[in-house]
Amino acid sequence: MIINCVAYEKGHRLHDIQTEEIGDYLGQPDRFVWVALHEPDEAEMARFQAVFGLHELAVEDALNGHQRPKLEEYGQSLFVIMHMITMRDDQLETGQVAVFAGPGYVLSVRLHPGRGFAEVRQRCEQEPALLRHGPAFVIYALMDTIVDRYFPVVEALQAELESIEDQIFIRGTARRSLERLYQLKRQTMRLKHAAMPLGEAAGHLSGVRVPTLCHKTREYFRDVYDHLNRIEAAVDTVREMTITAIQVNLSMVAIDEGEVHKRLAAWAAIFAVATILAGIWGMNFTHMPELDWRLGYPLALLVMGGACGWLYQRFRRAGWL
Amino acid sequence: MIINCVAYEKGHRLHDIQTEEIGDYLGQPDRFVWVALHEPDEAEMARFQAVFGLHELAVEDALNGHQRPKLEEYGQSLFVIMHMITMRDDQLETGQVAVFAGPGYVLSVRLHPGRGFAEVRQRCEQEPALLRHGPAFVIYALMDTIVDRYFPVVEALQAELESIEDQIFIRGTARRSLERLYQLKRQTMRLKHAAMPLGEAAGHLSGVRVPTLCHKTREYFRDVYDHLNRIEAAVDTVREMTITAIQVNLSMVAIDEGEVHKRLAAWAAIFAVATILAGIWGMNFTHMPELDWRLGYPLALLVMGGACGWLYQRFRRAGWL
Amino acid sequence: MIINCVAYEKGHRLHDIQTEEIGDYLGQPDRFVWVALHEPDEAEMARFQAVFGLHELAVEDALNGHQRPKLEEYGQSLFVIMHMITMRDDQLETGQVAVFAGPGYVLSVRLHPGRGFAEVRQRCEQEPALLRHGPAFVIYALMDTIVDRYFPVVEALQAELESIEDQIFIRGTARRSLERLYQLKRQTMRLKHAAMPLGEAAGHLSGVRVPTLCHKTREYFRDVYDHLNRIEAAVDTVREMTITAIQVNLSMVAIDEGEVHKRLAAWAAIFAVATILAGIWGMNFTHMPELDWRLGYPLALLVMGGACGWLYQRFRRAGWL
Amino acid sequence: MIINCVAYEKGHRLHDIQTEEIGDYLGQPDRFVWVALHEPDEAEMARFQAVFGLHELAVEDALNGHQRPKLEEYGQSLFVIMHMITMRDDQLETGQVAVFAGPGYVLSVRLHPGRGFAEVRQRCEQEPALLRHGPAFVIYALMDTIVDRYFPVVEALQAELESIEDQIFIRGTARRSLERLYQLKRQTMRLKHAAMPLGEAAGHLSGVRVPTLCHKTREYFRDVYDHLNRIEAAVDTVREMTITAIQVNLSMVAIDEGEVHKRLAAWAAIFAVATILAGIWGMNFTHMPELDWRLGYPLALLVMGGACGWLYQRFRRAGWL
Amino acid sequence: MIINCVAYEKGHRLHDIQTEEIGDYLGQPDRFVWVALHEPDEAEMARFQAVFGLHELAVEDALNGHQRPKLEEYGQSLFVIMHMITMRDDQLETGQVAVFAGPGYVLSVRLHPGRGFAEVRQRCEQEPALLRHGPAFVIYALMDTIVDRYFPVVEALQAELESIEDQIFIRGTARRSLERLYQLKRQTMRLKHAAMPLGEAAGHLSGVRVPTLCHKTREYFRDVYDHLNRIEAAVDTVREMTITAIQVNLSMVAIDEGEVHKRLAAWAAIFAVATILAGIWGMNFTHMPELDWRLGYPLALLVMGGACGWLYQRFRRAGWL
Repeated sequence: MIINCVAYEKGHRLHDIQTEEIGDYLGQPDRFVWVALHEPDEAEMARFQAVFGLHELAVEDALNGHQRPKLEEYGQSLFVIMHMITMRDDQLETGQVAVFAGPGYVLSVRLHPGRGFAEVRQRCEQEPALLRHGPAFVIYALMDTIVDRYFPVVEALQAELESIEDQIFIRGTARRSLERLYQLKRQTMRLKHAAMPLGEAAGHLSGVRVPTLCHKTREYFRDVYDHLNRIEAAVDTVREMTITAIQVNLSMVAIDEGEVHKRLAAWAAIFAVATILAGIWGMNFTHMPELDWRLGYPLALLVMGGACGWLYQRFRRAGWL
Repeated sequence: MIINCVAYEKGHRLHDIQTEEIGDYLGQPDRFVWVALHEPDEAEMARFQAVFGLHELAVEDALNGHQRPKLEEYGQSLFVIMHMITMRDDQLETGQVAVFAGPGYVLSVRLHPGRGFAEVRQRCEQEPALLRHGPAFVIYALMDTIVDRYFPVVEALQAELESIEDQIFIRGTARRSLERLYQLKRQTMRLKHAAMPLGEAAGHLSGVRVPTLCHKTREYFRDVYDHLNRIEAAVDTVREMTITAIQVNLSMVAIDEGEVHKRLAAWAAIFAVATILAGIWGMNFTHMPELDWRLGYPLALLVMGGACGWLYQRFRRAGWL
Repeated sequence: MIINCVAYEKGHRLHDIQTEEIGDYLGQPDRFVWVALHEPDEAEMARFQAVFGLHELAVEDALNGHQRPKLEEYGQSLFVIMHMITMRDDQLETGQVAVFAGPGYVLSVRLHPGRGFAEVRQRCEQEPALLRHGPAFVIYALMDTIVDRYFPVVEALQAELESIEDQIFIRGTARRSLERLYQLKRQTMRLKHAAMPLGEAAGHLSGVRVPTLCHKTREYFRDVYDHLNRIEAAVDTVREMTITAIQVNLSMVAIDEGEVHKRLAAWAAIFAVATILAGIWGMNFTHMPELDWRLGYPLALLVMGGACGWLYQRFRRAGWL
Repeated sequence: MIINCVAYEKGHRLHDIQTEEIGDYLGQPDRFVWVALHEPDEAEMARFQAVFGLHELAVEDALNGHQRPKLEEYGQSLFVIMHMITMRDDQLETGQVAVFAGPGYVLSVRLHPGRGFAEVRQRCEQEPALLRHGPAFVIYALMDTIVDRYFPVVEALQAELESIEDQIFIRGTARRSLERLYQLKRQTMRLKHAAMPLGEAAGHLSGVRVPTLCHKTREYFRDVYDHLNRIEAAVDTVREMTITAIQVNLSMVAIDEGEVHKRLAAWAAIFAVATILAGIWGMNFTHMPELDWRLGYPLALLVMGGACGWLYQRFRRAGWL
Repeated sequence: MIINCVAYEKGHRLHDIQTEEIGDYLGQPDRFVWVALHEPDEAEMARFQAVFGLHELAVEDALNGHQRPKLEEYGQSLFVIMHMITMRDDQLETGQVAVFAGPGYVLSVRLHPGRGFAEVRQRCEQEPALLRHGPAFVIYALMDTIVDRYFPVVEALQAELESIEDQIFIRGTARRSLERLYQLKRQTMRLKHAAMPLGEAAGHLSGVRVPTLCHKTREYFRDVYDHLNRIEAAVDTVREMTITAIQVNLSMVAIDEGEVHKRLAAWAAIFAVATILAGIWGMNFTHMPELDWRLGYPLALLVMGGACGWLYQRFRRAGWL
């Protein structure tokens, strides 16, 4: 589905055009066409492939929704795959955007539901001085938006980690913490696999040997690169702390277990003393004078209770109870 | 065993030829010979070694089935070793394909049973425009097919991981999960050792300094390289999550153990109280008035039952039972 | 808020100047202006952006307080982001300093509360021979001060680790040690993420291809680089020992648990023997001669006490009690 | 001790020569001398040092048996240290071979008992076409032989790992598996430290900047390099699986422990019920009608047996017994 | 404190000189001055700083005893910091040596007590042919000596590891082993942090781009580099085995714990059977014929003893006792 198909001149929007008219705008200095597609079918893609002269392998990748983020150069053209990652109901959702850009054109292909880029186009059109840099600036604007949308995800993961950390030293939460930590680790891996290859791409577009298309936008891509570095650093911290938290969680289970053992052992000792005393006075010796005492029985109960109480105190003091 | 031996001109199949005729087709512009062997014996290989001028060490490697994937250049010729990996009954099976390619010839040597490459040849012959790139395109076609066959294996490993993940937080499955995780780790390592060196090879064939044979096929090999990168990323995720899952599994064992302990301890306490009470009324004191009560016995049973029931309630509420 | 705005000539302080006068001092040989801001608002920053011709993206970063440390070149100008880390009440606090420097000016922007750099300016002014190197020397002076302030933090982390190490082999401290180790790991990660990217920046400013602004200050930045290396090495040691200490802590829990078990088991055995003996003499056989002995009862108690005592001795000797 | 001292011309053995005659053969085109020493004393080495002009530091290393594998260039000469590793009675034995090679000579110095290289010389002499490449080919032949002798060791380690893997999920083998895994890890480290630096050396001799001595033998060293890569990959797999197996082993101990606990708890419950019942009927209440029943006692035993049997069935069904 | 201050010509010792005379010997071909200081005060250092033209930052580092090992070039001069590590009473002690070297002078500054370098000077003076290489050779001689003194430390760490390994599979040693392993890990980290940066320095002095001062001593520094590589490999092995040993230790604790549990459970079962039997015969049923048997009591004891004995045998056979 074609979302937009607009021609620009010197950074200013000219007007919406039809697919058939695109050819008229290509190859003219200071002009470029910016097309946005959403889940196009093969026929639609084939048309644009013909118009812009896209490479067959890149077109395949753009249509297939399970690519790794990457940047590829085909002669003077660039082909970028990016992952959009959003958090919905504690689950990460991944969408894919493929961007083809060459002298005179930008074509973005968005797959899977997810927020579009209408706002990006709007913002670009408000700054013709920047949009004048041409297709490279559009790539930057899209990439910057996608990367900016990673930050809430990073923050959600950090918040989740902190919430688990608050819980992890509390008794009886081990199982739940463990499930959450495992889930967190998985989501972290997913974000990392979206951000890291994109970081390489942004690094390439801001490095020493920049593709000709991007000569004037190096500093913009360096900014994106820097954002991706921040995300990677945050993700690495979350990842490493998650691993540590899993170990800590195991230790807490063992420590709690040990405390439960001590509590139980203390009670077992108390019961054992009572049992022995009852056993002794249950013996059938003929000559057990205390058995015949008038207050023998209450005394016995007192002794039993006293012994138990004394033990209870001692265990309490030792921190076992 | 010779599977095929065909001559091509400008990407079009000419006809099947005999081994003896190969020499007639070598060194002619726009022509090349494509030979496919399956588990050849040494004599057969020696014949082709002579015809194509293959290096002795490469021939040895092609016949010996336990090579590491690799790419080697011998002057203008290339020698590639690839692993075919297939999943059969939850077990990974590894086959080996060695490809010799030089100006005017491609020779593929397949060892161990496994799917052949008849379909690759067919597909290539249907696209003469591509096959015209010559031997390098054949290497690409074979490599691409082998790498595409890795994806179902990756998916099987991911599915296995997900199936274990579903199980890992359920009680009583620890031993089975552990065996499966260990097995999964092994298979992951195997796939990794097949994909990683091949990725290096594909990277080399699409990099800055490409062998002359592959000058026109850089973008194709970059596509393979990209696929291998995706496989490596997936394999890395599986591997890291497997390690985490093993730790989580241990924690779950400890947590379950702790819960079993609590349950047992609760029952032990209940029994202990009953035992003590029975012991007390079994004592032989002369003056134990309740022993002579008419309803002493049923009352005693009631008290015992009541104490046990009260404890049971308390433990239940504390989540121990 | 403008803290200072001073003009220098040949390393000597000329006098405080107004923002409006800055333009008069720019572009004059041997002169530069050094401005220090603290939490400026956007309007204030915009003024300096215009005066010094700062890049829009850098200005954004300087105002936004959550940047990663970094060094960026914009033409002849440099832009540095650094983290100030201080330990307050066992908690790490992070502040941010952004420094813009170009031919003829240095502008430092400090965010979040934290110690200022008045002392840095003072010390610089006392050494005109050094300050003569111009803006690059000011960057060095600020960076050196910030890095020197990392050392007390490193030492606090090392001291905390040592304090935990002293405790870790003592019984009953596992839970507390674990919490402290986890906290320590987090703080270590934080310091590392401040020091490591700054180390890259310092390395770049003392490396083979130094920005022109810093040609005469290479050796100074190498010194900072070396300090950051020391910090990284120290942080790595703390990090690795923390991981080990967490494992050791778990082992200690298991060992302590085992010792508690042995102690309990020993007491259980002692009680069991007494219980059995009491049970035997509580049996109702008609012919149990010892029951009728005059000293039967005291003897029985003696036997029970003796058996328990003997067991106690044995367990003691075996190290179980 | 001199094992051999032979002169070669164009790859053909001329004849055995005396140490004194060596000088006559040096510096003659197409000729070289190949000397093999076994545990030479210092005087012997000093003689050869003088004849071949060996560097003092290299000679020291050759005599001292605890070097790391390495390749050093001294002007036009090469100095290689390799480790021979053999498996004897489940123990790894390490020997050292130092090879000096320069234009016109090869000198190998073998330390510690271990298989010699008589077969290498024999095989070389049977292929004069190859031996014609001179000293570099001799280095290759020795290195190839040493590396080929690593393979049985790798296979022994893999077999040991597989044997442990077969055992690891069986109960009651944890201690033995652990000892074997630890031992395996040690041996793996040892093999790795022999193979890895040698791999670097072989990589250097087959790389882009090859020492002049080895110009014609690049492909041979690439073959050795490839073998060492295979060994490293195998060793890495063994190492990583060993680490995993140690963790799995711990989990299995915990799982087994849990199962033992359940079994014991079930028996404890059964005993407890019997004990309580006996306690109840041992109480001294006057009015306990069942005590006077004729069949009271056998009925009581039946009830006790029945209760125990019923519990036994339940635990059995729950998988605890 | 000045330990020595000697002038050399063509590798031969001329005579001791006073600090004031140093200037007379600087800048003369084939001559150099070698000064050794021990814990100099600032005034002393300032004097030498002036004479040799040392860089202020380097002088600071030399006086401050907590530097990281490093190599710095200041124009034609070199500045090296090395750590001396010695084992005293199972504790590692670290000293620092700073060496300044330039054309015509070497100045070594030793901090903290520790063995001096008198022997190094002596050995150098006995080999004028080598000492002729000038200040670079002195740096080598000092570095070589310091590195050689690392080997006994490495061996002590290896011996400690082996001693722990002998103990680790023996019961009841877990706590002690753990403390020793933790200590070993710490010491290993310390040695590593001394050796690794020094290795980088030695690598630089023997690499492709050697400082002019060291042109003739490349092979000597390569030897030191090689020694440091050996040390690093050994340290890495110790470190990795230590980590494994800590895990193994935990597993052994769990296994031992499991065995203790089984032993206890067996005894508990034996006691339980005796208790039940005593309980049964302690019941108050009127019609319990065996109670009235003449030999009832001894028979009962026999049955109890027999049951216990039979259980004991079974547990014994099952390996639980």
